[in-house]
Amino acid sequence: MSFSSSLLEQAVQELSRLPGIGKKTALRLALHLVKNSKEEVRQLGNALIHMRDDMRFCKQCYNIADQEICNICSNALRKKNVICVVESIRDVIAIETTQQFSGLYHVLGGLISPLDGIGPDQLYIDALIERVKSGAADELIFALNPNIQGDTTLFYIHKKLGDLPVTITTISRGISFGGELEYADEMTLARSIQNRQPVTQYVGMKG
Amino acid sequence: MSFSSSLLEQAVQELSRLPGIGKKTALRLALHLVKNSKEEVRQLGNALIHMRDDMRFCKQCYNIADQEICNICSNALRKKNVICVVESIRDVIAIETTQQFSGLYHVLGGLISPLDGIGPDQLYIDALIERVKSGAADELIFALNPNIQGDTTLFYIHKKLGDLPVTITTISRGISFGGELEYADEMTLARSIQNRQPVTQYVGMKG
Repeated sequence: MSFSSSLLEQAVQELSRLPGIGKKTALRLALHLVKNSKEEVRQLGNALIHMRDDMRFCKQCYNIADQEICNICSNALRKKNVICVVESIRDVIAIETTQQFSGLYHVLGGLISPLDGIGPDQLYIDALIERVKSGAADELIFALNPNIQGDTTLFYIHKKLGDLPVTITTISRGISFGGELEYADEMTLARSIQNRQPVTQYVGMKG
Repeated sequence: MSFSSSLLEQAVQELSRLPGIGKKTALRLALHLVKNSKEEVRQLGNALIHMRDDMRFCKQCYNIADQEICNICSNALRKKNVICVVESIRDVIAIETTQQFSGLYHVLGGLISPLDGIGPDQLYIDALIERVKSGAADELIFALNPNIQGDTTLFYIHKKLGDLPVTITTISRGISFGGELEYADEMTLARSIQNRQPVTQYVGMKG
């Protein structure tokens, strides 16, 4: 691509470093910003810089936070004794958006994946064990992705917890609401028959 | 979407105002930036702000520019007497990328479109007429999109130019290189037969 303005070129260059944004999309975004007011563009730029400079990770659950302890951990209305263990901040946002869980979280920061060189030491697993040891939790709900890495991580933590007095559960798997049986994969369909539930339990998630 | 950090929320809010970027994509981009270094994010943010604050439009051709006159207009090596008339900055970049045109440009800033309330007065048409009147151009090459707006704009300018001593051409239309005849639309195929060229002229664009 050939630019007559180095300012535009610089902006396109920076935008095209974002994931999923190629040169053409970056140009489209930059030319959109050219049409915006200076104030609007300054708001966008500063929001990004401000977020990266001032954000922290919650000391307790490793979620993204504005203070030392995140809004969720410091919320007096939430159940402190139920902890939902997730892979990433994105999962926290997904679960929070359902408004069905009122406990706390623990963000592992990834999943054990020897092929990618990610071992338990690079994740916040020890911190989770410490939280349980300190008696902070009666129940751990694992909400990890159902793949080899998720299962490996679940089994590793399960073993590490040993005889600690804590109930361990995972979120239920099965045919999604609105999903059609005929299009479900065999594994999911087979498991959802094995793990069938009494009709009286046929309700949403409980925190 | 429910956020535990207002900094993150702010960044997602701003990113999702960009065209073609919804809330989910904005979140993905913001969490990508969270993983970047502070320096990288500052570079991105400042590149956008810097572009919007310091950019100008070339006084002569209305292309985006760093100075009063853009790099293309001030380039002594380019042919000053051939002007390519385009709708937008994006078209300038597309043509410049081919490296086949060595003349100057004139960016109209849009096309005449009564339905969208865009009349000739909102475009840089008078400025183009002035450029031609001052004797700056021997040839105007129109590279407008082949739709009603493009044709209307071409005819309007053509009429306005009246008897001024300038050659008016448009870029050639036809089956694209690598395009298959059987998939071409009827209009394009019919026109490309009407406007057939001698084989000796079968070369790329000449500036």
